[in-house]
Amino acid sequence: MKRSFVRVEPDSHFPIQNLPYGVFRPRGGGPPRVGVAIGGEVLDLDALDRAGCFAPAAASGRGVFAQPSLNRFLALGRPAWRQVRETISRLLDADEPALRDNEALRAAALRPLREVELLLPAEVGDYTDFYASRAHAEHVGTLFRGKDNALMPNWLHLPVGYHGRSSSLIAGGTDVRRPNGQLKPPDAEAPRFGPSRQLDFELEAGWLIGTGNGQGRPIAVADAEDHLFGLTLVNDWSARDIQAWEYQPLGPFLGKSFATSVSPWVVPLEALAPFRVPAGKQEPEPLPYLRSPSPETFDIRLEAYLQGGAMARPERIAASSYRELYWTIAQQIAHHTSGGCNLRPGDLLASGTISGAAKGARGCMLELTRRGAEPLRLGGGVTRAWLEDGDLVILTGWCQGDGYRVGFGELAGRVLPALPYP
Amino acid sequence: MKRSFVRVEPDSHFPIQNLPYGVFRPRGGGPPRVGVAIGGEVLDLDALDRAGCFAPAAASGRGVFAQPSLNRFLALGRPAWRQVRETISRLLDADEPALRDNEALRAAALRPLREVELLLPAEVGDYTDFYASRAHAEHVGTLFRGKDNALMPNWLHLPVGYHGRSSSLIAGGTDVRRPNGQLKPPDAEAPRFGPSRQLDFELEAGWLIGTGNGQGRPIAVADAEDHLFGLTLVNDWSARDIQAWEYQPLGPFLGKSFATSVSPWVVPLEALAPFRVPAGKQEPEPLPYLRSPSPETFDIRLEAYLQGGAMARPERIAASSYRELYWTIAQQIAHHTSGGCNLRPGDLLASGTISGAAKGARGCMLELTRRGAEPLRLGGGVTRAWLEDGDLVILTGWCQGDGYRVGFGELAGRVLPALPYP
Repeated sequence: MKRSFVRVEPDSHFPIQNLPYGVFRPRGGGPPRVGVAIGGEVLDLDALDRAGCFAPAAASGRGVFAQPSLNRFLALGRPAWRQVRETISRLLDADEPALRDNEALRAAALRPLREVELLLPAEVGDYTDFYASRAHAEHVGTLFRGKDNALMPNWLHLPVGYHGRSSSLIAGGTDVRRPNGQLKPPDAEAPRFGPSRQLDFELEAGWLIGTGNGQGRPIAVADAEDHLFGLTLVNDWSARDIQAWEYQPLGPFLGKSFATSVSPWVVPLEALAPFRVPAGKQEPEPLPYLRSPSPETFDIRLEAYLQGGAMARPERIAASSYRELYWTIAQQIAHHTSGGCNLRPGDLLASGTISGAAKGARGCMLELTRRGAEPLRLGGGVTRAWLEDGDLVILTGWCQGDGYRVGFGELAGRVLPALPYP
Repeated sequence: MKRSFVRVEPDSHFPIQNLPYGVFRPRGGGPPRVGVAIGGEVLDLDALDRAGCFAPAAASGRGVFAQPSLNRFLALGRPAWRQVRETISRLLDADEPALRDNEALRAAALRPLREVELLLPAEVGDYTDFYASRAHAEHVGTLFRGKDNALMPNWLHLPVGYHGRSSSLIAGGTDVRRPNGQLKPPDAEAPRFGPSRQLDFELEAGWLIGTGNGQGRPIAVADAEDHLFGLTLVNDWSARDIQAWEYQPLGPFLGKSFATSVSPWVVPLEALAPFRVPAGKQEPEPLPYLRSPSPETFDIRLEAYLQGGAMARPERIAASSYRELYWTIAQQIAHHTSGGCNLRPGDLLASGTISGAAKGARGCMLELTRRGAEPLRLGGGVTRAWLEDGDLVILTGWCQGDGYRVGFGELAGRVLPALPYP
């Protein structure tokens, strides 16, 4: 098994098999730049580029890593991504002396993760959120519209999704302010305005688009993965009471757009290759533009943790899997562009909450507590129907290899109390 | 009445009282830059800036007009916008010799509109579309859900809106490709995939945000107009058959995101000041965060024209008014940010289709033909239930002053046939 000369703990998410990309700023000062996580360290790609390590690759000497986002690198396309990944993988190899034995280059290019601040990895032009977990759609549909209207008639025919708000995307670790909004409980005569009482998280995965498509030029399902750069974790914070009152007929708006957290590390498609598995059967068979000869998905474990009140430590409240998604990312890209909509480098396509059928596999409080009716019982005598002020939510996920993990690290966010308004 | 030394025809939309901003590229070559329309000419603000005309204003000497979008100028805020407008207004005045009598500066800064290409005026980070015309919401609600569920219970309490797709915004004059998509007529058992058969336009107005707000920091209704730069026309092209099948429960997606046209000229808030009128009464009274002591709207005439088939010229198919909007832009901004959502310079907030109660005041085909049931009868024996390939749609609008018009020019787009796919 390939090993790095950089120390990597056995349960680390960042072995040499992973090499996820992110954007960081040294805590000691200096401009943001692109890096790769390896064990407990970050490899500064701009430092490597300045040392000529990527020549003659397309990404060499063009400043694509001296940027506050991955976007310029993303726009270069898969051949450039591959060349860079191969170079990094070689340079970090335990048997390769070029970086290992070059003390000056190591000092310039490697620094402990605790000495850097991790930023949003991309400048996201547009953020789309899908609704691709069948268990989630059925659970939520039942709670909002009753069992008979749980799955809308379109759900099994197309990957339902909506346009999210890109301005309110935030980097992992950023606190989240509880939103105020219009609330109208079913038994109230009129709405009132105040802090959301049904604040929720959503356990999601998010694909970062590498190269885009021209407007009016659909991406075929067979070509869709060519446009994929990599995968992140996404927490699509939701105010269920605001959402329930506002969402008809045009969909979620302020119930979502106060904040959506994105994990700092983007795991490239190449690192996920060993964890490809056949996708589940779709019945009815999708229309031809959504058909693949052998559709694949990825075997990724996903978990959510909560710590609040008197709890001594974060406690796991959900254990789900990327395999719960009914629609593949290739189908989502083919559908998204089928009418001519253009994707651009850095666009984010999130999955929607990923839930399984089992009670412990539900990826949001709405499902876990059946809309607040069955509060969670946690350590320290803490109960939770919805998120409370001060609560810390941590999402994590990884692929389990033989003796190593390809992981996403943690996506954390703490709930701040609402501001008095108006 | 103030006059310019530049010739302005009596029915021109661009007298010295208007001075709308846009981004243009000379047809003869050269980089894009910011300009202002005056009569049949465009005033090159970068040329004026290079000549020192804006000193000592905040916008002077910083290259904010040597840009492919208005965004850097927008971010400077109202005091800078005012200084620039006052300078331009003075320089173009018939009684002011500084530009009028400076042949070299005139040659550098003024060129005929026919010699430039007009681009999208802003780099739009996020595009929000509201649903603020009551007549439109009632007409569409009746057609989609029947008369009893026409207005959803939330409609009179909050400005309903949704997140649009910013990547698919296009400049006025750009052709629009008919989208393919999933279609399921009510009597069909399963959906099929093919060209939309119910292609529509939407007559809308769109506000361009100047200065934004920090995430988690709402904008009070009383402060909302401080953040407004100016107004454009928007044609939110819609595929009603795709939309009808896909929109539940998360709202419009591919039925809208194939293309949205934005007019090239942004009329600044200051130019609309003489056309302020009291807003209509709202019943029930809105919640306090949406209340103004004396809410205002703008008296703007809006029209849509169609030319297709054997028609000799475009024919007017809708005459509406900005006054038909139930919610004011100040209320929309206050609502949009009330939960902490952040607006950024260049964001676009469109109104939704603006329809009146009268039959000729309906701003989209869906309403004009009652979902295709009552086709329009036009010149040359042409009838139209929906838009057909080759059809040209032109939106226009203006405020009628005493002897002058403050207008938006034209927003045109022609329908191209769908591409064969898949």
